[in-house]
Amino acid sequence: MESGASLQKGSSDGYSSEAAAGSQEQPLVSVSAVLPAGGTGERMGGGTPKQFCRILGRPLISYTVQALERISWISHIIVVVSIENVEIMKSIVKQYGHKRTIIAEGGTSRHRSIFSGLKMFVKNSLIQKPEVVIIHDAVRPFVEKDIIFKVVMAAKEYGAAGAIRPLVSTVIASSPDGCLDHSLDRAKYRASEMPQAFLFDIIHQAYHQCNDYDLDYGTECLHLALKYSKTNAKLIEGPPDLWKVTYKQDLYAAESLIKEIISQQVCVITDMNENAVQTGFLLHETLKSHVKLVKSLSLILCKDSNHLQNILLGQCYNFICISDILSNFQETQQLVKILEKTNASVLSSIVLISVHMDDLENAAFSSEMHSFVELAKEVKKKNIFLYGLIIHYQQDNLKLQETAETAATLITALIRDRNPAFVGQLLVA
Amino acid sequence: MESGASLQKGSSDGYSSEAAAGSQEQPLVSVSAVLPAGGTGERMGGGTPKQFCRILGRPLISYTVQALERISWISHIIVVVSIENVEIMKSIVKQYGHKRTIIAEGGTSRHRSIFSGLKMFVKNSLIQKPEVVIIHDAVRPFVEKDIIFKVVMAAKEYGAAGAIRPLVSTVIASSPDGCLDHSLDRAKYRASEMPQAFLFDIIHQAYHQCNDYDLDYGTECLHLALKYSKTNAKLIEGPPDLWKVTYKQDLYAAESLIKEIISQQVCVITDMNENAVQTGFLLHETLKSHVKLVKSLSLILCKDSNHLQNILLGQCYNFICISDILSNFQETQQLVKILEKTNASVLSSIVLISVHMDDLENAAFSSEMHSFVELAKEVKKKNIFLYGLIIHYQQDNLKLQETAETAATLITALIRDRNPAFVGQLLVA
Repeated sequence: MESGASLQKGSSDGYSSEAAAGSQEQPLVSVSAVLPAGGTGERMGGGTPKQFCRILGRPLISYTVQALERISWISHIIVVVSIENVEIMKSIVKQYGHKRTIIAEGGTSRHRSIFSGLKMFVKNSLIQKPEVVIIHDAVRPFVEKDIIFKVVMAAKEYGAAGAIRPLVSTVIASSPDGCLDHSLDRAKYRASEMPQAFLFDIIHQAYHQCNDYDLDYGTECLHLALKYSKTNAKLIEGPPDLWKVTYKQDLYAAESLIKEIISQQVCVITDMNENAVQTGFLLHETLKSHVKLVKSLSLILCKDSNHLQNILLGQCYNFICISDILSNFQETQQLVKILEKTNASVLSSIVLISVHMDDLENAAFSSEMHSFVELAKEVKKKNIFLYGLIIHYQQDNLKLQETAETAATLITALIRDRNPAFVGQLLVA
Repeated sequence: MESGASLQKGSSDGYSSEAAAGSQEQPLVSVSAVLPAGGTGERMGGGTPKQFCRILGRPLISYTVQALERISWISHIIVVVSIENVEIMKSIVKQYGHKRTIIAEGGTSRHRSIFSGLKMFVKNSLIQKPEVVIIHDAVRPFVEKDIIFKVVMAAKEYGAAGAIRPLVSTVIASSPDGCLDHSLDRAKYRASEMPQAFLFDIIHQAYHQCNDYDLDYGTECLHLALKYSKTNAKLIEGPPDLWKVTYKQDLYAAESLIKEIISQQVCVITDMNENAVQTGFLLHETLKSHVKLVKSLSLILCKDSNHLQNILLGQCYNFICISDILSNFQETQQLVKILEKTNASVLSSIVLISVHMDDLENAAFSSEMHSFVELAKEVKKKNIFLYGLIIHYQQDNLKLQETAETAATLITALIRDRNPAFVGQLLVA
């Protein structure tokens, strides 16, 4: 990932990266991916094909491309879209800075689109034909490196491999009059999911040999590999979040999962004022029971952009900037400028909560407050969501602890919701 | 529904009720329902069985019971739970005021639980044996009257009927070595969903005759009716939101759908102050492009509790109370009292936004503000979420229109989010 930060699901320690345990594994074989995205999204009941539906402002397919792109050993990602969506896809690749991504023009069915993608490796001399090709779905954004690695390794060994899941509902066959003919024993069958992977020559040959009926009405690449290349794919149990975003409720679920992922970390930044440092420490401790990973940093360190860059690379999209009084939000302004420079908000909104200790009476709607609202409006355009939070600083330790608990609840809600409507609002703990 | 208000999915006009078009239909046959809820929720990866997981504070199963309960021609709803959950289920029925609901102790498998439920109609002389029995899932809360009516009518005619959906993934069979054996033609199969319905004697006989293997490992009631009562069930295409809450992402999706349903209507209540009336009118008009149905009411009419009761019965859970200045929130207090009396917040949180026109300077954190925060804390315990909103009243019409637009965006976000963390906060438009 060259674009500064990527979205990926946290491992148990709150975040994961290329360097995290286990993920250094390399398949030791050349690998590329085909991402069919030619669907018209008719099952969503809406006009926009589901792969282009926006989640937190960003098209679903961009999340999926990113999931593949962050795996360094995938050489090329061929995204196959229908001819009318080529320009849209180009602008997505540009806007979100996707690398190693090539757009191909798709066919009229899923199989024809995949075939178009595979052909790119043969007809385009600039794209090296891989030994193993991954086939994934544009509408399965939560695919993890772990399952991709497993199907690639199995494809290398068996020629073909695919992720499966237990069936959620019983599968039945109906008679021509719309009545039950028979039901299948749920235990004996599995749902075929994605990703799948193949030795390139096996799947390419299968597509070459299959007939028009297969290309127009087939749904299963593993079936083609079996029928035309005599290869019984290895089946690999995948995690539940491999599911396919198909209906409106799936979009809601995907949004919530993405929010959950990007709200796992928060970085507390304080200036050197004594009260601010104390409150920062208190908030740091209190937030630990709300957020998976809390980091702290002084504003001075923050100005060294390497420090901040590292935090952003570690999947942290949430910042709390603590200064003393409300009128003093230059620190917030400085931080906004540094964040803007990193470009990290291209892929995900950044939440920045400007925390001020103050007597409530002083927090009246002063001219500084007006500038704060204006700043918030301005940086919202850059996908940085700025909120204000006043903590009533109290000498009484017990009361201060209570206030910190309220503040942590508000901070967690702001981070989790990422609601653009509340940008520029001043909450009170 | 005797408990004052029920949650149901809106039809295209923004709300639906027993009296809405089409829904007066009666199956002209005695009908009861069995709701197996004995599952242990292992697929959620957590300790709490999924039917008891809370969505917006309320257990999932309560939503499903409510979906059946609001259909007046369903005589009894037998909820079958495992022995360790009988007390939990009893407290749910009590807390949410569920009517016509009987708790039965379940078996060790889904089929055994359903059989236990069916036996209640035979062994308990107080519960009349129905001609048609509906079998549904505790974890499918979005079932509509329309599909229930269809399966009941089909069961009356065919002896058995069930809802189906197209398969989302291809279904495959694996060989003993974990490789693909064959894949099914997706077009020829369907996913068997719920609700299902049966002539009571047909399904009761099937359960009586089936063997232990069926009872322990079977998953499909339609299969039992076919195998033991020689009845080919009629299959009926159901809507996508019949899906089964199975994984964590499904809980997220369910929460979002419920939020969508309860945020479709808002009622604007104004006092008789001239500015308040004008702002009320402006907000009413502006909100129309954000919320499906906007109603208006004067505070005086509101005090006649019949008016408010009718609004609540019409599925409205969101209120905006407009008064002139911030210090004057007696109207809000009055409305809170009236809302408390209706008991409507038992089933769903009620959002109440106290809107005040004011110069921002006056809105400082006065002692009134302190009382507002205290009131909000207090009524939150009763599931009424009180938020404050200041509208900077401006003579300039264009500016006022802009402010109204901002206010409508904030109101919509508050209604949609229903975030308890922000209760008592004062937002500014």
